[in-house]
Amino acid sequence: MKLYYAPESRAVRVAWLLEELGLAYDVHKFSLGEKSMREPKYLTLHPLGRVPTLEDGENRLFESGAIVQYLLEKYGNGRFVPPSDSSNFASYLQWFHYAEGMIMPPMNTLVVETILLPPERRTEVNVKRASKLLNQMLYAVNENLTDKDYLVGSEMTAAEFMTGHAVIMSQRLGIDMEDKPNLVDYINRLESREAFKTASNK
Amino acid sequence: MKLYYAPESRAVRVAWLLEELGLAYDVHKFSLGEKSMREPKYLTLHPLGRVPTLEDGENRLFESGAIVQYLLEKYGNGRFVPPSDSSNFASYLQWFHYAEGMIMPPMNTLVVETILLPPERRTEVNVKRASKLLNQMLYAVNENLTDKDYLVGSEMTAAEFMTGHAVIMSQRLGIDMEDKPNLVDYINRLESREAFKTASNK
Repeated sequence: MKLYYAPESRAVRVAWLLEELGLAYDVHKFSLGEKSMREPKYLTLHPLGRVPTLEDGENRLFESGAIVQYLLEKYGNGRFVPPSDSSNFASYLQWFHYAEGMIMPPMNTLVVETILLPPERRTEVNVKRASKLLNQMLYAVNENLTDKDYLVGSEMTAAEFMTGHAVIMSQRLGIDMEDKPNLVDYINRLESREAFKTASNK
Repeated sequence: MKLYYAPESRAVRVAWLLEELGLAYDVHKFSLGEKSMREPKYLTLHPLGRVPTLEDGENRLFESGAIVQYLLEKYGNGRFVPPSDSSNFASYLQWFHYAEGMIMPPMNTLVVETILLPPERRTEVNVKRASKLLNQMLYAVNENLTDKDYLVGSEMTAAEFMTGHAVIMSQRLGIDMEDKPNLVDYINRLESREAFKTASNK
């Protein structure tokens, strides 16, 4: 397998899962936003020039959520996914999809407005609006973690690779976590995993 | 089952699948943005006060992608999902997740900037930037549909409920489709389905 990767990107989600499952993979490393991501060769793999993209034999796909689902189905042997007849299954799916549905849209805006755009093109009102929205999304996660260590219960699931990673990225982007104490504990819990550390430093 | 729904929202995705599967369900109908979506009673179901939310016996979940996956697993009998050992499986997952990963972030911005915000708080640069990005996302879908009727091949899959619906919403938001002829055909193909029509007019 080959993973097209950049540090501090959604590609870490995929590398993290690969590490947790102990699967071997090659890494093609980009820096986020570097020019070679827009070169014709890479655009044949990913038409928008983003990461992650995974090649696995004849199969090739992008979208972190899709790749995580693909790897779990092919190589997971049931790990990180509650059985579909369990009481946790609905909640698992919800928190898996929460990352892209809720957290990432305002985070995308924050990344654009605080990192990618040159200072003279940034808009303060966009930063304020996105920060407010992102905080709302994170309060709901904080609330959900009141009585449990992981999003869906006492055991880690693949929702952690998605929404857990999005929570970690929010903190690294400078979102204040002081009023979200459950997230502080949760982030420590996830960041202390060897698989996460390895995946973050490819 | 009970579906919390609003017209022209992501809840149509869920209603569409329910109709295609011939499942019975009750509808609680909101108008997008109406105050009662923020009332404490509904916030216990969905902490952000959005739609869709699904109640199914003891199970309760939000996020359209999660609900679609849940319904397919529980009641789909394999419909709309390529087998995991088929050559289409990776592509299916990719186009399923493309909706929220790629299309919806700029579409969210467009909805905020052209519909939800009062005119004096709208920012022209945001509309331009989001329109440009949304067009890029849609060109990739148009390209993918060059040689097939549906996102993953000759047969409809659940990727249509997600990315297909997002394409339809883009057109209704005023995105020009003249330079994306495959999308025009694709939209007609999807909108002509009875299940889609019924789901859109709950």
